[in-house]
Amino acid sequence: MSHPVNQPKRKLKLGAMLHGVGSSMSTWRHPELPSDASISIDYIKEQARIAEEGKLDLVFIADGLYINEKSIPHFLNRFEPVTILSAIGSVTSRIGVVGTLSTSYSEPFTVARQFASIDHITGGRAGWNVVTSPLEGSAKNFSRKEHPEHELRYEIAEEYLEVVRGLWDSWEDDAFVRNKETGVFFDPDKMHRLNHQGKHFSVEGPLNIARSKQGHPVVFQAGSSDSGRSLAARTADAVFTGHETIEEAQQFYRNVKERAAAFGRSPDEILIFPGIGPIVGRTAEEAERKYQEVADLVKVEEALLYLGRFFDHHDFSVYGLDEPFPDLGDIGANSFRSTTDRIKRKAKEEGLTLRQTALQVATPKTSFIGTPEQVADKIQAWFEQGAADGFMIGSTVPNGLRDFVELVVPVLQERGLFREEYEADTLRGNLGLPVPENRYTAARRKAAEAQVLPEQPETVPAP
Amino acid sequence: MSHPVNQPKRKLKLGAMLHGVGSSMSTWRHPELPSDASISIDYIKEQARIAEEGKLDLVFIADGLYINEKSIPHFLNRFEPVTILSAIGSVTSRIGVVGTLSTSYSEPFTVARQFASIDHITGGRAGWNVVTSPLEGSAKNFSRKEHPEHELRYEIAEEYLEVVRGLWDSWEDDAFVRNKETGVFFDPDKMHRLNHQGKHFSVEGPLNIARSKQGHPVVFQAGSSDSGRSLAARTADAVFTGHETIEEAQQFYRNVKERAAAFGRSPDEILIFPGIGPIVGRTAEEAERKYQEVADLVKVEEALLYLGRFFDHHDFSVYGLDEPFPDLGDIGANSFRSTTDRIKRKAKEEGLTLRQTALQVATPKTSFIGTPEQVADKIQAWFEQGAADGFMIGSTVPNGLRDFVELVVPVLQERGLFREEYEADTLRGNLGLPVPENRYTAARRKAAEAQVLPEQPETVPAP
Repeated sequence: MSHPVNQPKRKLKLGAMLHGVGSSMSTWRHPELPSDASISIDYIKEQARIAEEGKLDLVFIADGLYINEKSIPHFLNRFEPVTILSAIGSVTSRIGVVGTLSTSYSEPFTVARQFASIDHITGGRAGWNVVTSPLEGSAKNFSRKEHPEHELRYEIAEEYLEVVRGLWDSWEDDAFVRNKETGVFFDPDKMHRLNHQGKHFSVEGPLNIARSKQGHPVVFQAGSSDSGRSLAARTADAVFTGHETIEEAQQFYRNVKERAAAFGRSPDEILIFPGIGPIVGRTAEEAERKYQEVADLVKVEEALLYLGRFFDHHDFSVYGLDEPFPDLGDIGANSFRSTTDRIKRKAKEEGLTLRQTALQVATPKTSFIGTPEQVADKIQAWFEQGAADGFMIGSTVPNGLRDFVELVVPVLQERGLFREEYEADTLRGNLGLPVPENRYTAARRKAAEAQVLPEQPETVPAP
Repeated sequence: MSHPVNQPKRKLKLGAMLHGVGSSMSTWRHPELPSDASISIDYIKEQARIAEEGKLDLVFIADGLYINEKSIPHFLNRFEPVTILSAIGSVTSRIGVVGTLSTSYSEPFTVARQFASIDHITGGRAGWNVVTSPLEGSAKNFSRKEHPEHELRYEIAEEYLEVVRGLWDSWEDDAFVRNKETGVFFDPDKMHRLNHQGKHFSVEGPLNIARSKQGHPVVFQAGSSDSGRSLAARTADAVFTGHETIEEAQQFYRNVKERAAAFGRSPDEILIFPGIGPIVGRTAEEAERKYQEVADLVKVEEALLYLGRFFDHHDFSVYGLDEPFPDLGDIGANSFRSTTDRIKRKAKEEGLTLRQTALQVATPKTSFIGTPEQVADKIQAWFEQGAADGFMIGSTVPNGLRDFVELVVPVLQERGLFREEYEADTLRGNLGLPVPENRYTAARRKAAEAQVLPEQPETVPAP
């Protein structure tokens, strides 16, 4: 790819997933990891500090709203996203703090407020990862008769986001005058009621908090199904996705950027972040050994439970372990749809048994494995070949984030792919995303331009 | 009051209300106060630091869910409680962090999680101030047709608290085994589903976070109406109230303690915190001058708006300013009921005009005013004469908290009324409240005792 001489080279964006005991079923058993990592405030603050030392763009907190005996250990006992983002944001100064919150089981007024508040607390470093809650059980924790089905969840999410973005514009940037002399605290013309009346929500506003330095918190979207892509393309600033091969990632990347363009957006205004779990060793053998250490900790019974979670806690223990992966029909289609589709497809294409599938899902064999240079090569390839604008770094092995920051980041910096120092003090600034103009300010500006630009209209009064 | 020789002297409890630009309508205009104090993270962190240096038990964040053009400046633009508590908790180490959250417009699963999460983030220093939302407009921000009426709100709150306390007991204290050798992460017998099915909520559980060091976050309750007192007496650890005279406060204190006793609770297990706005000067005249400076900043039109807020934004500008305070009938009865009752009663008893009433409400003339000794005398009298277990300190004047900590706290310490150093590292510990035993652990213990205690039962197997 060639760049015009004066245009700064496109830079890679990096996020760190802070997920305590790791994304694998049994990583908590590893001797080098504190077994209470998912609920240890010291551990999570230390991880955030490492990420900030590595000049990463953001830390990322995932979430879920339903657990049972079969849930993986990390999910049983963990921090709630809004509270932990605020805590991390208070002990860091440059890194973004992004967390998951579901549009299916919350109120837009509250969520708009909470993320706006984190945005003020951090001086403009907040981000919200919009999900619609894949777990059917969630309904049982929220006084609902049933979990809304997939399409309905996305319909709700779309209206929800409209409301939240509207509330975030309640106050124009210069609304708070605060003139001690005259006693004018705010300009009532720059306070706006949303007066939203929709199918799922009616919200009057205004929100009781101003816009922050970055205008709106950064909006991530994390569903990769058709409805998820469509929602992202219309409204998200960034997409958190997952792919096993570069071809798959390229296809997704192209698809979302095309959809965004179809909605009249610049493809540069939506960043694609595949999640990866790099395993780095000083040598390729060391990296391989690290993977094996973690994979060996998983019992096959646990792997079946873990697999079942993606399929609405389907009980896989009824099938033969060494039989071909069973035909599941529609099971899982209303839950983690894109993940379950991929698992089914792969098992079929590669002719895997249930045991093989379960173990692979429990400890995915990442292709981002090897020496720092090998991992950097892979990252560079995806980044330069239209598969990613950045990556969400997960820790498959203990000290995975530290290894990545100490070993891989310097290689990426040397190659000019990643920053040496933060460019900005807001998350939007570092991600290279524009500050969204307040909708009312924009309307006023456009009205003024329309009046003045065509030619001097006759209605302008003489001076 | 006499104390048995070996019993430690009962100590006063103190909280600091962090309310930015002050509880008065126009304090923000004072030259010594940053006019953006309600949304300044640096200002609020500094206030929390001052409170912690003063060894105060807790900081307190109030809240509201509806604003309009008539709202007082502080309410227009402020932090959301859950996020700011977590932020404050992350930069302090001993002081409790307590905040308001409404049971009328939120989900018990989410709120139980968020406060439990803050409790883990702070190592057991979280508290929740339960309110039912006095502002009728709130409904319009939460897709509701109408604001539930007063009695219904308290009925909902009671069930809501039952659910939250139940969720907080989802995991017994020794549920997380985390045995790396055996691979046992948790003991399934010590994980409990709530399976709550009530009139207003159905919540299965378990909560996806463990109990903290203090068992449950401390529960404050802030409604002083009959229903409010009843809710507090049944379930709260502490009550935040407001009274103008010691007699009124004594009556309330006695009433709540009696109600608690009627519910089978020890009166010591529920602490009464009147809110006060002390104004301290090196001399009585200096204190008086400080009050007047702030009172002089209020315009009468603004005072009418402020008054109107307590009466569901009633428009007081239609009445004669120097006529007797108008007869309002039921207006305000579904909102801040105990406050509006008090305002009406006082205006009638003292024959006040609308102007006098509005100005007094806008800048209440506290009786906790004067030299450090005079303010300490007043506090001591209320504390020793059955009117208070502690106080919530509001700032009526700029630097009110700093003055209180630097000038009054040392006097209280000298008199042996207030701690010189934190006794504990949890909020319950400092407040002298017991750690609530997990309900399932308690049931197991009681079952075991019942089996063993009466006499050696025949069913005990021979060793």
